[in-house]
Amino acid sequence: MKENNKRGGRPKRTPSGRGKQPLRVMCLGGLQEIGKNMTVLEYGDDIIIIDCGMGFPDEEMPGVDLVIPDISYLVANAHKIRGILITHGHEDHIGAVPYVLQEINVPIYGTRLSLGIIEGKLDENPAPNEPELYTVEAGDVISLGVFKAEFIHVNHSIADACAIAIRTPVGIVYHSGDFKIDVSPLDGNIMDLTRIGELGKEGVTLLLCESTNAERPGFTASERTVGSSLERIFAQYEDKRLIIATFSSNIHRVQQIINTSARHGRKVAVLGRSMINVLGAAAELGYMDLPDGVLIDVNDIKRYKPGSVTLITTGSQGEPMSALYRIAFSEHDRVKLQANDVVVLSSSAIPGNEKLVGRIINALVRAGVKVVNDSVDAVHVSGHACQEEIKLLMALLKPKYVMPIHGEYRHLYANKEIAEFMGIGSENIFIAELGRVLEVDKKGAAFNGEVPAGRVLVDGAGVGDIGSVVLRDRKHLAEDGLVVVVASVDSEGGYVISGPDIVSRGFVYVKESEDLMREVKAIATQTIERLLQKKVSDWTQMRNVIRDDLARFIFRETKRKPMILPVIMDV
Amino acid sequence: MKENNKRGGRPKRTPSGRGKQPLRVMCLGGLQEIGKNMTVLEYGDDIIIIDCGMGFPDEEMPGVDLVIPDISYLVANAHKIRGILITHGHEDHIGAVPYVLQEINVPIYGTRLSLGIIEGKLDENPAPNEPELYTVEAGDVISLGVFKAEFIHVNHSIADACAIAIRTPVGIVYHSGDFKIDVSPLDGNIMDLTRIGELGKEGVTLLLCESTNAERPGFTASERTVGSSLERIFAQYEDKRLIIATFSSNIHRVQQIINTSARHGRKVAVLGRSMINVLGAAAELGYMDLPDGVLIDVNDIKRYKPGSVTLITTGSQGEPMSALYRIAFSEHDRVKLQANDVVVLSSSAIPGNEKLVGRIINALVRAGVKVVNDSVDAVHVSGHACQEEIKLLMALLKPKYVMPIHGEYRHLYANKEIAEFMGIGSENIFIAELGRVLEVDKKGAAFNGEVPAGRVLVDGAGVGDIGSVVLRDRKHLAEDGLVVVVASVDSEGGYVISGPDIVSRGFVYVKESEDLMREVKAIATQTIERLLQKKVSDWTQMRNVIRDDLARFIFRETKRKPMILPVIMDV
Repeated sequence: MKENNKRGGRPKRTPSGRGKQPLRVMCLGGLQEIGKNMTVLEYGDDIIIIDCGMGFPDEEMPGVDLVIPDISYLVANAHKIRGILITHGHEDHIGAVPYVLQEINVPIYGTRLSLGIIEGKLDENPAPNEPELYTVEAGDVISLGVFKAEFIHVNHSIADACAIAIRTPVGIVYHSGDFKIDVSPLDGNIMDLTRIGELGKEGVTLLLCESTNAERPGFTASERTVGSSLERIFAQYEDKRLIIATFSSNIHRVQQIINTSARHGRKVAVLGRSMINVLGAAAELGYMDLPDGVLIDVNDIKRYKPGSVTLITTGSQGEPMSALYRIAFSEHDRVKLQANDVVVLSSSAIPGNEKLVGRIINALVRAGVKVVNDSVDAVHVSGHACQEEIKLLMALLKPKYVMPIHGEYRHLYANKEIAEFMGIGSENIFIAELGRVLEVDKKGAAFNGEVPAGRVLVDGAGVGDIGSVVLRDRKHLAEDGLVVVVASVDSEGGYVISGPDIVSRGFVYVKESEDLMREVKAIATQTIERLLQKKVSDWTQMRNVIRDDLARFIFRETKRKPMILPVIMDV
Repeated sequence: MKENNKRGGRPKRTPSGRGKQPLRVMCLGGLQEIGKNMTVLEYGDDIIIIDCGMGFPDEEMPGVDLVIPDISYLVANAHKIRGILITHGHEDHIGAVPYVLQEINVPIYGTRLSLGIIEGKLDENPAPNEPELYTVEAGDVISLGVFKAEFIHVNHSIADACAIAIRTPVGIVYHSGDFKIDVSPLDGNIMDLTRIGELGKEGVTLLLCESTNAERPGFTASERTVGSSLERIFAQYEDKRLIIATFSSNIHRVQQIINTSARHGRKVAVLGRSMINVLGAAAELGYMDLPDGVLIDVNDIKRYKPGSVTLITTGSQGEPMSALYRIAFSEHDRVKLQANDVVVLSSSAIPGNEKLVGRIINALVRAGVKVVNDSVDAVHVSGHACQEEIKLLMALLKPKYVMPIHGEYRHLYANKEIAEFMGIGSENIFIAELGRVLEVDKKGAAFNGEVPAGRVLVDGAGVGDIGSVVLRDRKHLAEDGLVVVVASVDSEGGYVISGPDIVSRGFVYVKESEDLMREVKAIATQTIERLLQKKVSDWTQMRNVIRDDLARFIFRETKRKPMILPVIMDV
């Protein structure tokens, strides 16, 4: 089941169009939420899509593996779609590609690293048709129907990230992607502020601006500042083995760790499937510079002194079964913690992960290991623009309209306040919801109508077969467990043939609650016999009465409300 | 079921005792965890207990309401117990009192406010015997068997908090309680550093020191600094209605909000059951100074202009169904948000609550309300000692031995490092585990043996009837749901009489998975018939085969592993 916020069918034509079509801008993901970013631009018979991300389930979605956008609007308009443009290779921008390609066959445009990571995902989860992947570079302009999309280099916590400026019949739309302005990036390649300024001079109609850090004042620190911290840590712990956890996709971070290791005469071993995969892809594509002889196999680390080894690992978010988790809990088959180890968490906990990260820190400290995290030293910087950077972008672009994207409501609103501070009238700033259509033409911009949008839950092999009913049942089962009541009856004779059998799971510890279960059985027996004698033959009604009788008794005795499942077989 | 970490029975006598008993110190809660604080001192035939707290369930304990210490050691030694000493009235120090009094009848000593809050809890959950509650004041000394316990005033985020210095046959044991050193507290009553210094001069054998903020450098700011922030906020938003959320037990904070309101000519209405209860108790006991005519009923707020009203409410941790939650989501029957409102979260999110707090902030911002939290202004200070305060305490006490308490391993370890910095030898610092016994005599201190300790889960009316099996089942059900297979069979005839019926919950959306459910039914039928034909009469084996066959098929089709519950009735 898909959960849509459907509010109607095709939108009305705006009066302002006067024959000409308005540009229609809508987000199928990334609004009022973190993740599953997907923005759609539609003009006449042409649609382009920017990003195609997945999101992570929250505590309201037990058992769900990941969340992807509802793309029923795209499926219904598949013939119009000219392409998907990828800003960068993070999961929340590309993670839904394999799922979307199951439904629609559409070319994908992205920089080399983004496409390299997408290819890895398509190997695991192949598309029904050979996917059309087109590599672009920052500066390239792609024609897609009426649209011309220009990729523009930005800084971010992954290499090869871009913003996209789209020339449309109603003017330039600038999609910021995720970005920060790093004036001293590792590769020397600062965000292309010059080109952005040129677009601003030309005139930008609409800025779609990311909002992740819009609540934070100031500037985000340069990735290079992490290098200084690493240098300090390497000097301080020169005799100790260093285990450094970070995001596998943060190639510049990994590069800095490798460089610092090489400078300090350390060999580097890499742990964790995604870290090994991304490092391999990045090295192959030329995004990393691996000094000769520095990388060693994890099996060889014992041949070196602790002070001569760095381990780079996944698990900086405390993910269970990540390499760092297994190391911390002594479950890793090749890396055993030693008293001489120093673990650096080169990351910050994503909201919701604090407890998981805390659990790993406790395990590490308990093992006698020194832990350095971002509360101890500046071992992490964000990849997202803070308020001053967003202001600078707006100052250069001077957009007519702004639509904040990528964030919860509080972040979108903070971004709106920034735009207002920059002199953009509040009537020209649009906080949208998923599926809400912003129509823009030469004369104005206004919300008009909605398309289906929402979340599709992926659980195992199932895409979209879990909806609110299943989730509600899972939460109910998790809260108070389950009582199954099974009986065989002869409804014509009006008597119970066998049972009722009472089976419970997740409700009480049955061996210590025998009296309670006996009483449950007695009440179920009474109720069923009473109903049979009354010749109740409506099985739904019978089940409801059994459920109510038992629920009342169980709540009185235990103050709990387990799910009660009566199964009555008429033999 | 109780989950103990039992590791043996009665402890061995230490050789160092030489006829004399050693003092035995053990924690039944508050070690390697946050919450359910409980420390036990035993000497010969005398036991005293310090604090009796509850803890909150984590995500591994779905459906559990609260967690209390396993007190089987106390029950087995009930005749020795001379009393429970309460350091202060927070839930993690008093929350288990009603449950413990169900098992053992023992006098309780605490300051007025602590006992006032305990009385409220006992009204809701009465003890089988009339509880003996004895009010003490800071400075009082209570004789309890061989022990003499002196209550010592400390600062904390609740009024009337104490440390406890216990004279024992092996010297003075100082239990820090929870504390901070506030040199400018609201009531002018600074932590009794003088008395602490006198004890230090006399000689302290063992310091039991709280560890909550032991990872944080520096000093915790004074409660008075919050007053300055409030003053600024009241001045800035003089025309707006202020809604201020904080912990109900933080009486000084509530007092500051009331005082600032009075100074700015605002009336104050109080929202939320616990806020109203605590305020009532605190005012009655003389802990609050309520200026005449300031408090108004929430029903009367409409009679005042927005700039003339302050609402004080619960819900600063984002608790669903708290007053602030209901206000934020427009579910409060008497308070509707207005565009002129400013909401102040005078608190910081307890780890694990970040997402809940975030949800409320999003709802408030969406309603057009200005939100001020501790990332915007200094509207909250911690109630716990940071590193410099712990150092000061240690400098005054000069303890021979230190045992860090109240914290996860990382916090206990950070406290150990502080003690080492203060010159206490690492061999004299003891990081314990729940139930682990520290024996102290005139000659030395060492761990020796364990007593049963662990957690007892409270769910509804059930105390301790939920254990690891029930929790495992709940988590399994939450992850992938449930498939029930019911059939009536004639085992002698070897055929199925009725069914199998397949009922699922929390697994797939059944209406869109009819084919799958049909196949599940077909496989169940085949398996049952095959087993009956083989004359399998071992019902456990039969259930196992059905479970295995269905699990294999379901995993192949869906990559999910629902709980499978076969119920076969032999009619």
